[in-house]
Amino acid sequence: MNDGNKSGLLEELIYQTIPLGKAMKLKVTQLTNNTICIEAPVSDANANIHDTAFAGSIYSLCALSVWGFVHARLLVENISAEVVLAQAEIRYLLPITENIQASCSIDEQAFIAFQNRLLEKGRARINMTAIVQENDEIQATLEASVAAKITTG
Amino acid sequence: MNDGNKSGLLEELIYQTIPLGKAMKLKVTQLTNNTICIEAPVSDANANIHDTAFAGSIYSLCALSVWGFVHARLLVENISAEVVLAQAEIRYLLPITENIQASCSIDEQAFIAFQNRLLEKGRARINMTAIVQENDEIQATLEASVAAKITTG
Repeated sequence: MNDGNKSGLLEELIYQTIPLGKAMKLKVTQLTNNTICIEAPVSDANANIHDTAFAGSIYSLCALSVWGFVHARLLVENISAEVVLAQAEIRYLLPITENIQASCSIDEQAFIAFQNRLLEKGRARINMTAIVQENDEIQATLEASVAAKITTG
Repeated sequence: MNDGNKSGLLEELIYQTIPLGKAMKLKVTQLTNNTICIEAPVSDANANIHDTAFAGSIYSLCALSVWGFVHARLLVENISAEVVLAQAEIRYLLPITENIQASCSIDEQAFIAFQNRLLEKGRARINMTAIVQENDEIQATLEASVAAKITTG
Protein backbone atom coordinates (compact mmCIF):
# COMPACT_ATOMS: atom_id res chain seq x y z
CA MET A 1 0.00 0.00 0.00
CA ASN A 2 1.63 3.26 -1.02
CA ASP A 3 1.53 6.48 0.97
CA GLY A 4 -1.11 8.09 -1.25
CA ASN A 5 -3.50 5.23 -0.61
CA LYS A 6 -2.88 5.07 3.13
CA SER A 7 -3.22 8.80 3.81
CA GLY A 8 -6.33 9.00 1.60
CA LEU A 9 -7.92 6.03 3.37
CA LEU A 10 -7.24 7.47 6.83
CA GLU A 11 -8.63 10.86 5.77
CA GLU A 12 -11.77 9.17 4.43
CA LEU A 13 -12.13 7.16 7.66
CA ILE A 14 -11.87 10.34 9.76
CA TYR A 15 -14.39 12.18 7.56
CA GLN A 16 -16.86 9.30 7.82
CA THR A 17 -16.57 8.56 11.53
CA ILE A 18 -15.43 11.78 13.28
CA PRO A 19 -17.72 14.74 12.41
CA LEU A 20 -15.35 17.23 14.04
CA GLY A 21 -12.48 16.08 11.82
CA LYS A 22 -14.67 16.84 8.81
CA ALA A 23 -15.72 20.21 10.29
CA MET A 24 -12.03 21.03 10.70
CA LYS A 25 -11.47 20.41 6.96
CA LEU A 26 -8.32 18.49 7.82
CA LYS A 27 -6.09 16.80 5.26
CA VAL A 28 -3.84 13.80 5.93
CA THR A 29 -0.85 14.93 3.87
CA GLN A 30 1.53 12.09 4.73
CA LEU A 31 1.27 8.64 6.26
CA THR A 32 4.09 6.13 6.25
CA ASN A 33 5.02 3.32 8.64
CA ASN A 34 6.89 5.85 10.78
CA THR A 35 5.40 9.29 10.14
CA ILE A 36 2.11 11.09 9.87
CA CYS A 37 1.35 14.70 8.89
CA ILE A 38 -2.10 16.26 9.15
CA GLU A 39 -3.01 19.85 8.42
CA ALA A 40 -6.04 22.12 8.59
CA PRO A 41 -6.70 25.73 7.59
CA VAL A 42 -7.17 28.37 10.30
CA SER A 43 -9.69 30.57 8.50
CA ASP A 44 -13.31 29.42 8.21
CA ALA A 45 -13.02 26.18 10.14
CA ASN A 46 -10.45 26.55 12.91
CA ALA A 47 -10.27 30.19 13.93
CA ASN A 48 -10.82 31.66 17.38
CA ILE A 49 -11.89 35.10 18.58
CA HIS A 50 -8.38 36.46 17.90
CA ASP A 51 -8.39 35.15 14.29
CA THR A 52 -5.63 32.70 15.13
CA ALA A 53 -6.00 28.92 15.45
CA PHE A 54 -8.49 27.73 18.09
CA ALA A 55 -6.75 25.84 20.93
CA GLY A 56 -9.24 22.98 20.52
CA SER A 57 -8.49 22.65 16.82
CA ILE A 58 -4.74 22.52 17.43
CA TYR A 59 -5.29 19.87 20.09
CA SER A 60 -7.69 17.87 17.93
CA LEU A 61 -5.28 17.84 15.00
CA CYS A 62 -2.48 16.59 17.28
CA ALA A 63 -4.79 14.01 18.84
CA LEU A 64 -5.87 12.75 15.41
CA SER A 65 -2.25 12.50 14.30
CA VAL A 66 -1.20 10.26 17.20
CA TRP A 67 -4.44 8.26 17.14
CA GLY A 68 -4.46 8.02 13.34
CA PHE A 69 -0.87 6.85 13.20
CA VAL A 70 -1.37 4.02 15.73
CA HIS A 71 -4.72 3.01 14.23
CA ALA A 72 -3.28 2.85 10.69
CA ARG A 73 -0.03 1.16 11.66
CA LEU A 74 -1.82 -1.60 13.60
CA LEU A 75 -4.02 -2.21 10.54
CA VAL A 76 -0.86 -2.58 8.43
CA GLU A 77 0.42 -5.10 10.99
CA ASN A 78 -2.89 -7.01 10.78
CA ILE A 79 -3.56 -6.39 14.47
CA SER A 80 -7.21 -5.76 15.27
CA ALA A 81 -7.30 -3.31 18.16
CA GLU A 82 -9.32 -0.44 19.59
CA VAL A 83 -7.12 2.63 19.92
CA VAL A 84 -7.95 5.58 22.22
CA LEU A 85 -6.18 8.51 23.86
CA ALA A 86 -5.68 7.97 27.59
CA GLN A 87 -3.98 11.24 28.49
CA ALA A 88 -2.36 14.19 26.77
CA GLU A 89 -0.51 17.38 27.59
CA ILE A 90 -0.37 20.26 25.13
CA ARG A 91 1.78 23.38 25.20
CA TYR A 92 0.90 26.34 23.04
CA LEU A 93 4.07 28.25 22.15
CA LEU A 94 3.15 30.59 19.29
CA PRO A 95 -0.11 31.75 17.69
CA ILE A 96 -0.92 30.11 14.34
CA THR A 97 -2.47 32.28 11.66
CA GLU A 98 -2.75 30.33 8.39
CA ASN A 99 -2.40 26.58 8.50
CA ILE A 100 -2.12 24.15 11.42
CA GLN A 101 0.42 21.47 10.51
CA ALA A 102 0.78 18.62 12.97
CA SER A 103 3.25 15.80 12.53
CA CYS A 104 4.34 12.80 14.50
CA SER A 105 7.21 10.39 13.94
CA ILE A 106 7.62 7.14 15.78
CA ASP A 107 10.73 5.38 16.98
CA GLU A 108 10.53 1.97 15.31
CA GLN A 109 11.91 0.05 18.28
CA ALA A 110 9.44 1.73 20.65
CA PHE A 111 6.58 0.81 18.33
CA ILE A 112 7.67 -2.81 18.06
CA ALA A 113 7.97 -3.02 21.87
CA PHE A 114 4.44 -1.57 22.17
CA GLN A 115 3.14 -4.02 19.57
CA ASN A 116 4.73 -6.96 21.39
CA ARG A 117 3.21 -5.89 24.73
CA LEU A 118 -0.15 -5.51 23.01
CA LEU A 119 -0.01 -8.99 21.49
CA GLU A 120 1.21 -10.53 24.74
CA LYS A 121 -1.07 -8.76 27.27
CA GLY A 122 -4.05 -7.86 25.08
CA ARG A 123 -3.58 -4.20 25.94
CA ALA A 124 -0.70 -1.72 25.93
CA ARG A 125 0.10 1.98 25.91
CA ILE A 126 2.59 3.99 23.91
CA ASN A 127 3.83 7.53 24.54
CA MET A 128 3.81 9.70 21.45
CA THR A 129 4.77 13.29 20.65
CA ALA A 130 3.09 15.46 18.03
CA ILE A 131 4.65 18.71 16.92
CA VAL A 132 2.90 21.63 15.27
CA GLN A 133 5.32 23.71 13.27
CA GLU A 134 5.73 25.95 10.28
CA ASN A 135 9.18 26.09 8.73
CA ASP A 136 11.49 25.85 11.73
CA GLU A 137 9.15 27.43 14.25
CA ILE A 138 7.52 25.08 16.72
CA GLN A 139 4.06 26.46 17.54
CA ALA A 140 2.75 23.73 19.82
CA THR A 141 3.71 20.31 21.18
CA LEU A 142 1.57 17.44 22.41
CA GLU A 143 2.73 14.55 24.60
CA ALA A 144 0.15 11.79 24.56
CA SER A 145 -0.37 8.36 26.01
CA VAL A 146 -2.21 6.22 23.47
CA ALA A 147 -3.92 3.04 24.68
CA ALA A 148 -4.72 0.01 22.53
CA LYS A 149 -6.77 -3.08 23.33
CA ILE A 150 -6.97 -6.19 21.18
CA THR A 151 -10.45 -6.76 19.77
CA THR A 152 -11.74 -10.08 18.57
CA GLY A 153 -13.75 -10.72 15.47
CA MET B 1 -26.60 40.83 34.24
CA ASN B 2 -28.39 37.60 35.11
CA ASP B 3 -27.13 34.10 34.38
CA GLY B 4 -29.47 33.58 31.42
CA ASN B 5 -28.10 36.65 29.71
CA LYS B 6 -24.47 35.88 30.41
CA SER B 7 -24.57 32.25 29.30
CA GLY B 8 -26.57 33.18 26.19
CA LEU B 9 -24.12 35.96 25.31
CA LEU B 10 -21.09 33.69 25.71
CA GLU B 11 -22.74 30.98 23.60
CA GLU B 12 -23.49 33.53 20.89
CA LEU B 13 -19.91 34.83 21.02
CA ILE B 14 -18.53 31.29 20.62
CA TYR B 15 -20.91 30.53 17.73
CA GLN B 16 -19.90 33.73 15.94
CA THR B 17 -16.14 33.57 16.43
CA ILE B 18 -15.17 29.90 16.88
CA PRO B 19 -16.49 27.75 14.01
CA LEU B 20 -15.57 24.53 15.79
CA GLY B 21 -17.68 25.51 18.81
CA LYS B 22 -20.64 25.87 16.46
CA ALA B 23 -19.82 22.57 14.73
CA MET B 24 -19.83 20.93 18.17
CA LYS B 25 -23.37 22.21 18.78
CA LEU B 26 -22.35 23.19 22.29
CA LYS B 27 -24.63 24.91 24.79
CA VAL B 28 -23.50 27.13 27.66
CA THR B 29 -25.93 25.89 30.28
CA GLN B 30 -24.64 27.91 33.24
CA LEU B 31 -22.42 30.94 33.75
CA THR B 32 -22.08 32.73 37.05
CA ASN B 33 -19.21 34.72 38.60
CA ASN B 34 -17.77 31.45 39.92
CA THR B 35 -19.01 28.62 37.72
CA ILE B 36 -19.46 27.65 34.10
CA CYS B 37 -21.11 24.58 32.57
CA ILE B 38 -20.98 23.74 28.87
CA GLU B 39 -22.38 20.67 27.19
CA ALA B 40 -22.50 19.09 23.74
CA PRO B 41 -24.18 16.00 22.29
CA VAL B 42 -22.04 12.99 21.31
CA SER B 43 -24.09 11.81 18.33
CA ASP B 44 -23.90 13.72 15.05
CA ALA B 45 -21.38 16.34 16.08
CA ASN B 46 -18.92 14.85 18.55
CA ALA B 47 -18.68 11.12 17.95
CA ASN B 48 -15.60 9.08 17.14
CA ILE B 49 -15.06 5.76 15.37
CA HIS B 50 -16.23 3.88 18.50
CA ASP B 51 -19.49 5.92 18.71
CA THR B 52 -18.33 7.50 21.94
CA ALA B 53 -17.21 11.11 22.42
CA PHE B 54 -14.23 12.20 20.30
CA ALA B 55 -11.17 13.03 22.44
CA GLY B 56 -10.82 16.36 20.62
CA SER B 57 -14.42 17.30 21.36
CA ILE B 58 -14.02 16.52 25.07
CA TYR B 59 -10.84 18.58 25.16
CA SER B 60 -12.39 21.47 23.21
CA LEU B 61 -15.39 21.63 25.52
CA CYS B 62 -13.09 21.74 28.56
CA ALA B 63 -10.87 24.35 26.88
CA LEU B 64 -13.89 26.51 26.05
CA SER B 65 -15.16 26.23 29.61
CA VAL B 66 -11.93 27.55 31.18
CA TRP B 67 -11.36 30.14 28.44
CA GLY B 68 -15.03 31.19 28.42
CA PHE B 69 -15.14 31.59 32.17
CA VAL B 70 -12.05 33.84 32.34
CA HIS B 71 -13.10 35.82 29.26
CA ALA B 72 -16.61 36.44 30.64
CA ARG B 73 -15.51 37.18 34.19
CA LEU B 74 -12.94 39.76 33.07
CA LEU B 75 -15.66 41.46 31.01
CA VAL B 76 -17.83 41.59 34.14
CA GLU B 77 -14.89 43.18 35.97
CA ASN B 78 -14.49 45.75 33.16
CA ILE B 79 -10.97 44.51 32.43
CA SER B 80 -10.10 44.50 28.73
CA ALA B 81 -7.77 41.55 28.16
CA GLU B 82 -6.85 38.91 25.59
CA VAL B 83 -7.31 35.45 27.09
CA VAL B 84 -5.62 32.32 25.68
CA LEU B 85 -4.74 28.81 26.79
CA ALA B 86 -1.03 28.42 27.46
CA GLN B 87 -0.94 24.75 28.42
CA ALA B 88 -3.33 21.96 29.35
CA GLU B 89 -3.30 18.36 30.47
CA ILE B 90 -6.31 16.12 29.95
CA ARG B 91 -7.02 12.68 31.38
CA TYR B 92 -9.69 10.50 29.83
CA LEU B 93 -11.16 8.22 32.49
CA LEU B 94 -14.38 6.79 31.05
CA PRO B 95 -15.97 6.71 27.59
CA ILE B 96 -18.86 9.15 27.10
CA THR B 97 -21.83 8.00 25.07
CA GLU B 98 -24.60 10.60 25.19
CA ASN B 99 -23.72 14.10 26.33
CA ILE B 100 -20.40 15.72 27.16
CA GLN B 101 -20.88 17.94 30.22
CA ALA B 102 -17.91 20.06 31.22
CA SER B 103 -17.90 22.33 34.24
CA CYS B 104 -15.43 24.55 35.99
CA SER B 105 -15.65 26.36 39.30
CA ILE B 106 -13.21 28.99 40.43
CA ASP B 107 -11.85 29.76 43.86
CA GLU B 108 -12.76 33.42 44.37
CA GLN B 109 -9.54 34.33 46.18
CA ALA B 110 -7.43 32.73 43.45
CA PHE B 111 -9.33 34.68 40.82
CA ILE B 112 -8.89 37.97 42.66
CA ALA B 113 -5.15 37.31 43.06
CA PHE B 114 -4.95 36.58 39.30
CA GLN B 115 -6.90 39.74 38.53
CA ASN B 116 -4.60 41.84 40.74
CA ARG B 117 -1.48 40.41 39.08
CA LEU B 118 -3.03 41.10 35.68
CA LEU B 119 -3.79 44.73 36.55
CA GLU B 120 -0.37 45.25 38.13
CA LYS B 121 1.85 43.50 35.57
CA GLY B 122 -0.27 43.73 32.41
CA ARG B 123 -0.23 39.95 32.09
CA ALA B 124 -0.93 36.99 34.38
CA ARG B 125 -1.79 33.30 34.37
CA ILE B 126 -4.29 31.28 36.34
CA ASN B 127 -4.50 27.51 36.80
CA MET B 128 -7.97 26.10 36.27
CA THR B 129 -9.56 22.67 36.42
CA ALA B 130 -12.45 21.51 34.25
CA ILE B 131 -14.31 18.33 35.05
CA VAL B 132 -16.42 16.25 32.69
CA GLN B 133 -18.96 14.19 34.58
CA GLU B 134 -22.37 12.62 34.43
CA ASN B 135 -24.12 12.11 37.75
CA ASP B 136 -21.29 11.20 40.11
CA GLU B 137 -19.02 9.63 37.51
CA ILE B 138 -16.01 11.69 36.47
CA GLN B 139 -15.28 10.91 32.81
CA ALA B 140 -12.40 13.30 32.17
CA THR B 141 -10.42 16.06 33.85
CA LEU B 142 -8.49 18.98 32.40
CA GLU B 143 -5.84 21.03 34.21
CA ALA B 144 -5.13 24.21 32.28
CA SER B 145 -2.98 27.28 32.54
CA VAL B 146 -4.89 30.25 31.16
CA ALA B 147 -2.94 33.38 30.19
CA ALA B 148 -4.37 36.90 30.03
CA LYS B 149 -2.80 40.10 28.71
CA ILE B 150 -4.27 43.57 29.15
CA THR B 151 -5.29 45.14 25.84
CA THR B 152 -5.67 48.84 25.27
CA GLY B 153 -8.46 50.52 23.38
